[in-house]
Amino acid sequence: MAQFMDVHHGFEGITPDQLRQAHDADLAVEKEEGVHFERSWADPDSGTIYCLSEAPSADAVQRVHERAGHRADEIHEVPLVV
Amino acid sequence: MAQFMDVHHGFEGITPDQLRQAHDADLAVEKEEGVHFERSWADPDSGTIYCLSEAPSADAVQRVHERAGHRADEIHEVPLVV
Repeated sequence: MAQFMDVHHGFEGITPDQLRQAHDADLAVEKEEGVHFERSWADPDSGTIYCLSEAPSADAVQRVHERAGHRADEIHEVPLVV
Repeated sequence: MAQFMDVHHGFEGITPDQLRQAHDADLAVEKEEGVHFERSWADPDSGTIYCLSEAPSADAVQRVHERAGHRADEIHEVPLVV
């Protein structure tokens, strides 16, 4: 398992409820892909969302996001953390 | 105080020691700007670094990074967290 940071664009004006619903949609299917979404941060002004996850691969992260209806624009493995 | 996610590009091949040194350089001056850098994640393959901080403004975040020698390429306030 590794850690990944993924980025979504185009979510200008996202509300707390919408972020929660999107995160819950990920959590609902993540186990089937061996992924766990730990935390997400959103900037409604620029429409940017960052998601931190533990997963077996970037493809697995993307599969969860696709099944939840919100494909990521970028996914980076982040093996270094301080 | 608000939470911010900032992004640095161009750090291809960054090592754990280099990330630690960069983070320590931020920590050494952050108090003077009222900022606290909570965590940083790096992807050495793409050269991307993400930094999560608490700060009074994006400008304060940038001032710390500039003083530490590594200006951020993007800084987003992230008022929404799940």
